Amino acid sequence: MDNFTFHNPTRIHFGKGQIEKVGSEIPASATVLLLAGGGSIKANGVYDQVTAALAGRTVHEHWGVEANPDFDTLLPAVELCRTEKIDWVLAVGGGSVLDGAKFVCAAVNYEGDPWQILQDQGASVTSALPLGTVLTLPATGSEANGASVISRRKHKAKLHFISPLVYPRFSILDPETTFTLPPRQIANGIGDAFCHVVEQYLTFPARAAVQDEFAESILRVLIKEGPQTLAHPTDYDARANLVWGATCALQGMIGVGVPQDWSTHMIGHELTALHGIDHARTLAIVLPALLEAQRGTKSGKLLQYAERVWGISIGDDESRITAAIEKTREFYEAIGIPTRLHDYDVSADVAPQVAARLAARGMTAIGEHQDLTPDRIEAILRAAA
Amino acid sequence: MDNFTFHNPTRIHFGKGQIEKVGSEIPASATVLLLAGGGSIKANGVYDQVTAALAGRTVHEHWGVEANPDFDTLLPAVELCRTEKIDWVLAVGGGSVLDGAKFVCAAVNYEGDPWQILQDQGASVTSALPLGTVLTLPATGSEANGASVISRRKHKAKLHFISPLVYPRFSILDPETTFTLPPRQIANGIGDAFCHVVEQYLTFPARAAVQDEFAESILRVLIKEGPQTLAHPTDYDARANLVWGATCALQGMIGVGVPQDWSTHMIGHELTALHGIDHARTLAIVLPALLEAQRGTKSGKLLQYAERVWGISIGDDESRITAAIEKTREFYEAIGIPTRLHDYDVSADVAPQVAARLAARGMTAIGEHQDLTPDRIEAILRAAA
Repeated sequence: MDNFTFHNPTRIHFGKGQIEKVGSEIPASATVLLLAGGGSIKANGVYDQVTAALAGRTVHEHWGVEANPDFDTLLPAVELCRTEKIDWVLAVGGGSVLDGAKFVCAAVNYEGDPWQILQDQGASVTSALPLGTVLTLPATGSEANGASVISRRKHKAKLHFISPLVYPRFSILDPETTFTLPPRQIANGIGDAFCHVVEQYLTFPARAAVQDEFAESILRVLIKEGPQTLAHPTDYDARANLVWGATCALQGMIGVGVPQDWSTHMIGHELTALHGIDHARTLAIVLPALLEAQRGTKSGKLLQYAERVWGISIGDDESRITAAIEKTREFYEAIGIPTRLHDYDVSADVAPQVAARLAARGMTAIGEHQDLTPDRIEAILRAAA
Repeated sequence: MDNFTFHNPTRIHFGKGQIEKVGSEIPASATVLLLAGGGSIKANGVYDQVTAALAGRTVHEHWGVEANPDFDTLLPAVELCRTEKIDWVLAVGGGSVLDGAKFVCAAVNYEGDPWQILQDQGASVTSALPLGTVLTLPATGSEANGASVISRRKHKAKLHFISPLVYPRFSILDPETTFTLPPRQIANGIGDAFCHVVEQYLTFPARAAVQDEFAESILRVLIKEGPQTLAHPTDYDARANLVWGATCALQGMIGVGVPQDWSTHMIGHELTALHGIDHARTLAIVLPALLEAQRGTKSGKLLQYAERVWGISIGDDESRITAAIEKTREFYEAIGIPTRLHDYDVSADVAPQVAARLAARGMTAIGEHQDLTPDRIEAILRAAA
């Protein structure tokens, strides 16, 4: 096990009716920016609960944060914070709204071009407004971490930054607020969380027993509760298990002291930037092909994954690995997420393009062994055609 | 799944050589109280590392915090904090030193008799000095929670308090500092952590999938790595897995949103108060007998425990439950912890005494169904004779 530091200061309020806690979390004297997406929170009653909890405070609103939140959508919110002297930001929505809010919090007092925050991955962030969140879509884990992914469509770019300063001070997770989400968004959430776990787990054995067991735990929960909550959207416990599983997938506990491999996300981000494919769907395209390409260096963990997550214990090593990768693909397909580029009307021509774009940003050797070179990234995407 | 709030603000520095982080965690201007136990930290080099990290600060020391830290041992430390205007406490030792330090932190600015803190279980604590810890014995989880257990031998009392104000600001866990511990203390740590998990898990099914899986994870880790680290004390990864497993057992994640049953601890504390039996050993005495007595109401979870933790899948329900309880007893015996009162030269006469002492403090109906009445507590201890 490697040395690590773990610190997750976010206070989580989980369960039915918890949105009222906004009122005790944000000071009564605060001037608040409410950041939101496209208006579904008005249809499902979340907006009314939030504004009731904020009663008495000066609240400004900024709507329209889209999936894969765009730099240019967020800049006016940054400006609003400056002109209205906002001192708390409340993000109400899914991971995209939360990620956008983190960027706004970090950009308000940032000197210079805030795109630099993305270019240096957060290294230059020295202060941020306090952030609270009301999560309405289980998927990204953004409600309990210090990471944010921002797109800039004008430049066909999608970059991330990480800063301890943008951990939400509090996050409210009421599973009932997610009952009305379209199945496609729930499936995307399941698929995204699944990949988050895999990328912190499927590398090489590091004798980190608790972390491995916790990772396998979340995968089993997603495999069992994912289809259950898709089939029965108002089964509270199934949905609650998905929501909490997605949070636990990326709040830090399973990733401490172990090697990680975020190359599926890195490659997937490029597919979103180039073709607008839903984030989770890009992961479903890349992951099975990447595991196949890396089956040699990942063999120890793939065998462990085969046995503990999928119950595969028969056959020689190679056939068990093949079966585990196939199970992974089938899982995505079964929750309604196709796993081939052609399912999205994207040709294999995208392969060299993605490899070149990553290389242009210095990513010429990614993965836990830094062995995914541009030619191998290209080969993975061709295999995913 | 029940509603819950989760917030664990402790920063953990885990691994080899991490003690030097004390220097960046405690302000250079701080006046520090170093609280410690019996001097083993001088023999194993921890004290030297800590004092080097504290260089430049005014440091006062209070030694002699014993196992089951005593109120009367700690009062002089409280007084020292007041006279020397201490503004940071650093606990260096095992769970007893950490628990003692939490009490000192809470008592310094407490008005009135600080025993009241224990009597109202922390409800009256309104401020506490900031606390850092260097943990040298994996067991209690005190390094990452807001709980503390204090004894008062003069009154044959052992009580606990809980306050969010006494979470350590930081805790340092270097598994190498535990290599020289006697096997008895390591075994106690394994047994204590195991029981912490069981008491948050073995109640009734609540469809909290992640919490259940995480609890089962830690139990499997302790079952596998416990004997390994006893047999090979300097196997770094085995010891690291025990240390991190013990922390995860009681830092909150497995207990959120689920019923809990701390009656084994409640009963066990009385055995320590009356007969001075090691804390973990009291749990090993009580737990198998308690599970047997509660096998009816706990049947759903006992069957789950049998299958997922012990791999018991053959036989009818009752025989699988019997086998799981027997496995639990064998686990404690195998790590060198006897599970019967007579192994400690204590007769069954203690049974009515414990029941009466608990009843005198209002505990006349404990357990997740409040069905452990004094007569049933007495019967459990008679069965443990």
